[in-house]
This record gives sequence, structure tokens and C-alpha cells, in this order.
Amino acid sequence: MSSVSRLDPASGSSALELAMRSAIAASEGVRGFTSPNPPVGCLIVDAGGKPVGFGGTQPPGQAHAEIVALRMAGAAAKGGTAFVTLEPCAHHGRTPPCADALIKAGIVQVYYAIDDPSPVASGGAQRLRQAGVTVHSGLLADQVRTGPLRAWLHRVRTGRPHVTWKFASSVDGRLSAADGTSRWISSPEARAEVHELRLKVDAVIVGTGTVLADDPQLISRPPVNETATRQPLRVVVGERDIPAGARVLDDAAETVHLRTRDPREVLAALTERGVVDVLLEGGAKLAGAFWEAGAVDRALVYMAPMLLGAGTPVLGEIGVGTIGDALPLMFESATMIGPDVRISAVPAPE
Amino acid sequence: MSSVSRLDPASGSSALELAMRSAIAASEGVRGFTSPNPPVGCLIVDAGGKPVGFGGTQPPGQAHAEIVALRMAGAAAKGGTAFVTLEPCAHHGRTPPCADALIKAGIVQVYYAIDDPSPVASGGAQRLRQAGVTVHSGLLADQVRTGPLRAWLHRVRTGRPHVTWKFASSVDGRLSAADGTSRWISSPEARAEVHELRLKVDAVIVGTGTVLADDPQLISRPPVNETATRQPLRVVVGERDIPAGARVLDDAAETVHLRTRDPREVLAALTERGVVDVLLEGGAKLAGAFWEAGAVDRALVYMAPMLLGAGTPVLGEIGVGTIGDALPLMFESATMIGPDVRISAVPAPE
Repeated sequence: MSSVSRLDPASGSSALELAMRSAIAASEGVRGFTSPNPPVGCLIVDAGGKPVGFGGTQPPGQAHAEIVALRMAGAAAKGGTAFVTLEPCAHHGRTPPCADALIKAGIVQVYYAIDDPSPVASGGAQRLRQAGVTVHSGLLADQVRTGPLRAWLHRVRTGRPHVTWKFASSVDGRLSAADGTSRWISSPEARAEVHELRLKVDAVIVGTGTVLADDPQLISRPPVNETATRQPLRVVVGERDIPAGARVLDDAAETVHLRTRDPREVLAALTERGVVDVLLEGGAKLAGAFWEAGAVDRALVYMAPMLLGAGTPVLGEIGVGTIGDALPLMFESATMIGPDVRISAVPAPE
Repeated sequence: MSSVSRLDPASGSSALELAMRSAIAASEGVRGFTSPNPPVGCLIVDAGGKPVGFGGTQPPGQAHAEIVALRMAGAAAKGGTAFVTLEPCAHHGRTPPCADALIKAGIVQVYYAIDDPSPVASGGAQRLRQAGVTVHSGLLADQVRTGPLRAWLHRVRTGRPHVTWKFASSVDGRLSAADGTSRWISSPEARAEVHELRLKVDAVIVGTGTVLADDPQLISRPPVNETATRQPLRVVVGERDIPAGARVLDDAAETVHLRTRDPREVLAALTERGVVDVLLEGGAKLAGAFWEAGAVDRALVYMAPMLLGAGTPVLGEIGVGTIGDALPLMFESATMIGPDVRISAVPAPE
């Protein structure tokens, strides 16, 4: 970690942003491990501007990011500055308030990205100010909002999990060839990214049709020589039975079968289980039902460099008859990933 | 134009590349105006490194790029350096050899990007060297090869025009909605780019089905307050008649109707007319026939931020039955253009 030499707001934003970027990296690093709590990250620098503490929120019931970073910093935190991706909490939950811990450790300045929107935990900034700590909010807020805290903020705002519809297709918009084959349509690089993604979400959803057609295992397989530290909940949606012996029923991860095709019922059941972040993996018909219900928050396309000319279209019926009624999206990014192109889009703002 | 102060190869590549980038800009600027000749660009700097001449190849029978730049430079060319996107020609065609003109003007050094592959015009570098001019080849060759000279080099190599399949689709790979409507599927920014593209190609191809369904005019409409300086040849392919009154038959540009569906016949007819660069605009079935015939050299996708869930797929049958037989491509780029994403892909190298 390089030294952050100047932390005065007047010194320009680069040193501050560099420090917040470390906190964002810590936040991203614990994504998938903290639900239903937010995956927060924290960097603490001492009075001279040197990084002395760093960490992300631990699984529920364990230390929040600020506490992890304060423990690493020890006495060096006194007179220092904390960079946190979310406003430090002010409430006694399963752990004591982080605002109090920062005050007690002698932190004199706090930069955080996002105001805590949850009524029960907010008020941390006020409590810090009352104790004489200088507090700045909003640093790299957009990066945090669209990054590590995206799903958690969505769940607080809407009361339901954040749903990412992910699919791999050919350039001509086909999920599979004319005979239904689709294995390895995406590259090793894209597949590795999907396994990383599964590691970071709480649940993966497929329809019974996909289970019957492709028999996917739906777990996160990390690169060679690494072990997956957790697995997402596997969710199979639909009224048909899952065949005995299906890979989705193995003991590699927990699986739940929801005998409905109604996206609202699916999300209600997952909300009850504390699920915050969901990957909707297929097939085209189930994805259509989710879009038609307004239950998708992001589309993530892995476009493979090939043409098929026939085969399953990527999306089933969504109730659009004419071009003027098309479901409007907004692109977030288009990026080369290995030989593939990854495109991210969200529903267009009203 | 900023001064190019050091032109010694030992001085590092940035000043040289800057100069060649000006030549590439001149080359790009005349693309569409020179066929069947290459759209070459040239920058001349004087003995002190100051740019004194600049230009691109004029329409057939008129001056090549080097001559345009030499005329602008006048006596200042003496002792100077020329940057050219293509090896200066050595042959007497409708105009005298450019190599001789450079020698006569007192140019002492030439940087060019690409060796001239045409047997009739090559030999310029040798002629320059024999006259005591220092010659360097290969500077920014890749940028020129995939940029302004791409189509011309393709035509010299293969004997047929370079074909770009261009389409606008939804994120879920549909050309139009369930009822066939597709107008304004792409953004004003993407449409402006397509009009720019039509200005730079020699011909635009559509099938009779597209003429019957959409009645496109297929001309280049420049931005407000500008006038199109030329129009591509409009090519309608297919055995059905073009309805009287179709916009493609108006007098805004020349139109040819080729009563065939065989891509090879289409390209042979266009080659005979001196066409070098072609935009294949639709529809899905004609595009399928071109791909199946191995007659497409680039796919250019304008993906619009919308979902349709039904409608015409972007590509018709190409004879692929199973995933292992997919037609392999290689992505060149994926770029945000206005609210859309533009993706460029080429057939994968063998």
C-alpha cells in the first residue's frame, strides 16, 4: 500500500481518491460474504498520512469493516483518518456502533462515500460530528453506488434483491445452435469471470427447463489451485420436477426448488432468506418473465465472437409488439474480456 | 498543425508517429473519393521539421496525395521529409510516378506505412533509394492496414470488394419488433455515423425484401447545413421487382438492380464497376447468404439499448447446425457511441 501523504481536502482530490479506492477494493473483496449486511470497506491512515489499517466487513455477527481496520491499526489510529465506503453505523445490532469505535480510537477525520439509507443504522455521521470528528461524505460515491454496494443499496431502496440477468450469446443473438448445443459458447476468460460473479452473489436462478436441457452444476469454480470459500444458493424455478441425479442437487451447495414461474413470488421467497444479490442465468423464457414483471435490474451480456444463424434467441416473450413499446435500457459499459465482449445495461431511468 | 521538431529515427517514435497520424487523417479524409485508387494521405515537413504540405489522393485521374502535399509545400519541400500512408507509386498511370515527383522536389527522407502490394505500382521505395532518398517503411502500418487502406488492400489481395455487414439491433438480437417495425432503433449518433460511413464506401447493398418492407433511400445524409459531396452506388439484390416510386429509385444517387441472390455474382458485378468498399445493409436473409458464401469481411453492429423479446432475428440461415460448426469471428472493438454500443468483428483468421 503506498503512502497517502496529504489528506487535507485543499490538497486536491487525488490522494483522497487513492485512499477511498483502497476502501472500495476492500468493499469489493468481501462482496458475497456479508448479506444481509452491506459489504463495506475501510482504510485507516495515521496522523502522518500513512496507511495503517485496512479491511472489509466480516460475515453476519462478526466485525464490520471499520472494526477490522481499527484492529489492524491499533494505537496508530489515534489522530488518523478513516476512509469508509458507507457512513459508519450508529446502532447496536449484533455488533456495537462503528461510529463509537472510531471516536474511541481517536480518529479525527472520516471520509465516507455513501450516506447510510437504512433508518435503523443511520446517524453515524451526526454522532461523529458531535464527538468533534471532521466528516466528509460523497467521496467516489458513484463508484461505490454502482460498485460494491449496488445490490445492498437496491435491496434497502426496493425491499427486494438486486437481479442481474446474465447470458452468453453469439453476435447474432443466439443462446445456442439449431440443435440446442451451447457448451463453451463463451471463452475461458468470460467463464472465469462468471465463476467469480457467482462467488459474489447470494443466489443463482435458473428455470427447470435449463436444468433439464443443460444439467448445470451452478457453483462457483475458482481457478486451479484455489478453493471456493463459499457458494451461492442455487435456485431452480418452475413447476416441473428436478430429475434425481441432476447436478444441481449435488452437495456442492444448497439448492432450493421454487414451484412457481411468477418472478414476484421468487423474489419474495429469496428476500425472506436474506438474499441481496441474485444472478438470473436462464433460460430465455424465465428471463422474459422477469423482464415483463419489471424484476431485472441489470443485463450482463457475454457476446462470443461467432455467428450461428439459427438457434434459441436470447430472450423470450416480454409483451412488446411494436418498436415504440420496446423495453428501454441504458448501457453502462462495453468491454473486451478475452476474445469476448461484455456489455452491461440497466433499465432506463423513467 | 503543430511543429514536428525532431525527425531523426533515433529521437524516439512519438514525433514520427505524430507526423504519420496526420498523413493517416488525410488518408481517412479522402476515403470514398478515390476508388479504384487507394485513398492515400501525405504530410511533408521541411528540413527544420515544420509541416509545410498536407493532402490526400484526389478522384481518379487527378493528383495523388504526394502531389497534393508537394504543391502545398512548394520550394519548402527541398531537404524535407515525406510521411505517406502507402509506398509512393513508381508507375506512369493516368498521373506520373509519385516517387519521381518526391525526388524532383528535393525530399531527402520518406516514411511510409504500407508496401504497395499492387504489382503495377510497386517499386517506389527502390526508385527513391536509388536516387539517394532515405526510406523507412512500416510506421503505424497496423493503423493504416485496419484503417483507411483496409478495403483497398483487401481488394488488391482478393480481387473483390471489401464487404462490411452493418446492422442495428436490440440487446436481444432483433432487427425489428414483432410487427416488423424498426424505425429509429438506433440513436441519432449511430445514424450520423452510418451516414458518414455511406459517404466513405463505394456501394450500399440491400435485398429487395428490405426495399419492399422499409423503402429506404440509402443515401448519405450529412449533418444539417452540410451537403453530401458524393453518394455511394445503391445496389438492390434479388429477383423481385423494385416498385415504381420506391425511394431507392429517386435521383439522389445512382441505383443498380442485380437480379440474383448469389453473393459471388453480386461481388463480381461490383468488381467490374471498380467498387472497392461495400456496405451490406440488409436484410437478415441476404446477410446470411453473404456469410455462407464467405463474402463478408467485417460485421459492424450498432446495438441499441432496448429489449424486444420477439421480432426478426439479425441473421438468417448460414448453414450452422451445431455449436462446434459456428462461424468463428474475432472482435476488433466494442465502443459506446451515444447511447448505443458499436461492435466491430472480422472473420477469425484460419
